Amino acid sequence: MKSVLLAHGGGGEETRSLINDLFRRHLSNRVLDRLEDSAVVDMPEGRIAFTTDSYTLSPPFFNGGNIGKLAVAGTVNDLSVMGARPRYLSAGFMIEEGFPYDDLEEIVKGMKEEAAASEIMVVTGDTKVLPRGDLKGILINTSGVGEIVYAGLSASNLKVGDGIIVSGTVGDHGACILALREGIDFGLSIGSDCQSLWGLVEEVLKASDEVHAMRDPTRGGLAAVLTEWSTQSGVEIEVLEEEIPVKDAVRGACELLGMDPTHLASEGRVVIALPEREAEDVLSVMRSHPLGRGARMIGRVIGSGRGRVVLRSSYNTRRIMEPPSGELLPRIC
Amino acid sequence: MKSVLLAHGGGGEETRSLINDLFRRHLSNRVLDRLEDSAVVDMPEGRIAFTTDSYTLSPPFFNGGNIGKLAVAGTVNDLSVMGARPRYLSAGFMIEEGFPYDDLEEIVKGMKEEAAASEIMVVTGDTKVLPRGDLKGILINTSGVGEIVYAGLSASNLKVGDGIIVSGTVGDHGACILALREGIDFGLSIGSDCQSLWGLVEEVLKASDEVHAMRDPTRGGLAAVLTEWSTQSGVEIEVLEEEIPVKDAVRGACELLGMDPTHLASEGRVVIALPEREAEDVLSVMRSHPLGRGARMIGRVIGSGRGRVVLRSSYNTRRIMEPPSGELLPRIC
Repeated sequence: MKSVLLAHGGGGEETRSLINDLFRRHLSNRVLDRLEDSAVVDMPEGRIAFTTDSYTLSPPFFNGGNIGKLAVAGTVNDLSVMGARPRYLSAGFMIEEGFPYDDLEEIVKGMKEEAAASEIMVVTGDTKVLPRGDLKGILINTSGVGEIVYAGLSASNLKVGDGIIVSGTVGDHGACILALREGIDFGLSIGSDCQSLWGLVEEVLKASDEVHAMRDPTRGGLAAVLTEWSTQSGVEIEVLEEEIPVKDAVRGACELLGMDPTHLASEGRVVIALPEREAEDVLSVMRSHPLGRGARMIGRVIGSGRGRVVLRSSYNTRRIMEPPSGELLPRIC
Repeated sequence: MKSVLLAHGGGGEETRSLINDLFRRHLSNRVLDRLEDSAVVDMPEGRIAFTTDSYTLSPPFFNGGNIGKLAVAGTVNDLSVMGARPRYLSAGFMIEEGFPYDDLEEIVKGMKEEAAASEIMVVTGDTKVLPRGDLKGILINTSGVGEIVYAGLSASNLKVGDGIIVSGTVGDHGACILALREGIDFGLSIGSDCQSLWGLVEEVLKASDEVHAMRDPTRGGLAAVLTEWSTQSGVEIEVLEEEIPVKDAVRGACELLGMDPTHLASEGRVVIALPEREAEDVLSVMRSHPLGRGARMIGRVIGSGRGRVVLRSSYNTRRIMEPPSGELLPRIC
C-alpha cells in the first residue's frame, strides 16, 4: 500500500508531486495553483477576522467525518461566530512517515467538500513529514481569514435581559470521539455533529441586528462557553437544566462514564446571546435552517456584577455550573 | 521541574492559566488580549498576502535561536518575499505532555523578540497538548497576514537580462541543524542565519521598482528556488559557481557528508531576480543593511523557452544545477 514518505516533505521533486497529484488535484483554485510563498488575495476595505486551530484525532476518521472535514469546519466556525464571512483558509499538514496515502487522500477530500459547503477557498498550505515515531498519525492546522460583516460580537458583550440559545443538541462530537477512542458501543452509534455553521450564522445575523455574542462550544463544551461569557461580561447567567438539548445516546454514554454532556465538545453547534425579545424571531429562522432545526432557548442573563452561571433544575434547585477542569478532558477532545 | 500537562490543552482552567501566565505574559497586545475565537484586526483596502508553515525541530534549540524564533522569522519571510508588509501572525502550538515548561517559555520569548523585530503582532493562537509518545517534543504552526505594498513579484516573472542576487551565504541554517542532529562538531561551530527579512526586503523594494521575483531559500535551498523559477518562468538561468557565497565551515561540513550547500536551507537569506542594470544600485543598498552585508550577484537569466539552471565553473565547464531530491533532505530540515 502506498504511504507517505519522508521525501514527500523534503521540498524537492517528491514534495512537488504530492502537491500536484494530491493537494492540487482536490483543492485546486486560481490562487492555490500559483504555488507562491504566500497566497495573494483580495479583501474589501475594513476589518478582517483571523484565527488558527490545530486538529489531532487518532484514528483520524469518525462517524460523520474525518480530521480534514473537522479542520475546515472548526476554523470556519471560529470565523463565523465573530460575524466574519469565511473567505480564505490555510492548511498545514504534519504527517507521520508511513501514513497511508489513501487515508491522506480521504482527509483532503473531506476538506474539499467542507470548504465548498462554506464557500471558503484553501489558498495556501504546507506539508511536513516527521520520521516514524516522532508523531502518531497526522496533525492538521488550519488558519482562516474572514471579512467582518457584523461587528460587535464579543464574549464581553452580554447584557441583562439576554436570552441564551443553542442551535441543537450538545456534546455529540465529544461523545462520538469518546466512544471511538474507548472502543465502546453504546447500543446506539453516536454520530458527530461536525459541520460548518456559516450558513446558519448568516441567517441569524440577518434576522437580528442585536446579537451580542456567539460561540461554538468546542473544547470544554457548553459549560466553558457560558462560564467564559459570564466572567468576561461580568453577568449572572441562569440556565434551565432540562432545556439543554442532549441526545439520549450521548446522555447514556455520559452516565456510564461519569461525565457531563455540557463539558463535551460540539463541532457544529452555536451558542447565541441576544435580547430575549428578539429570541422568538431568531429561533424560528434557525429552526427553518437545516443546521438549526433543534434550536432552543436554554437560559437568560439575570443579573450583572457577578460573573457566574447558575443551573436551575426542574425541582427548582440551583447550583453553579462548573467549567470543565483537569484530567478527564484530554481523553475526549 | 514544571512541565506541560494534558490539562493545559483541555480548554478548562489549566488552559486559561497557561494562556495568561505564559502566552499573554510575553505576547500581550490589545488584539490577543481579547481572547475571542478570532482576532479582529484592521486592514487597508487592497490585496493581502496569507501564508502558513509548520515548524519541527528536535531538539528545539539551536545555535542562533529556537523553534519559536524560527517560526516567526519563517512566516515573516514568506510574506516579505511576496512584497507584503508583515502585519498579523497566528501561533498554533502542538506540545507533547511532559515538555519542560521553562523550554516552552524560552520558545515563546524567542517568538516575542522576533515578532518585535519585524513589527508583526501575534493576534491569535491555539494550544494542543498530545499524550506522551504521540508527539516528540513540540511543533509550531505560524500563519501570517500581510499587506501587499509591492505587487507583481512572482516565480513566473523572470525575464531575460535579469540578474540573480543572494543576500548572503547559503546553507547556514541547514548546516547548523545538521551538525546539531548528527552531534558533529566541525571544528567551527556553525550558527544559523535565522532572522526576519522584512527590513532588508523593504529597502530593496524602495530602491527598485523593477524587482521581478524574491524568495527565501528554505527547504531545498538555493537549488530549489532557482529550479522552480526557471521552470515556472520558462527561462534558462546561468549561475557562476564560485560566486555563490558559502561559509568555510558550511562547505567543510558538506564535503564531509557528501552534501551540496545549495541544497541546504537558509532561514534568513533572500534570492532576488531583477534587471541586471538595476543590480548595482540594489546591491549597494543591500550591503549597507545589517541583513544584506554579504549580498552579491551570482548569475543571470540568459535565455527563454527552456526552463533550466546551468552552473558554470571557473574552468568554464557547464552542468545542470539539480533540484534536491529524495532521502537526504529530511535529515536536515
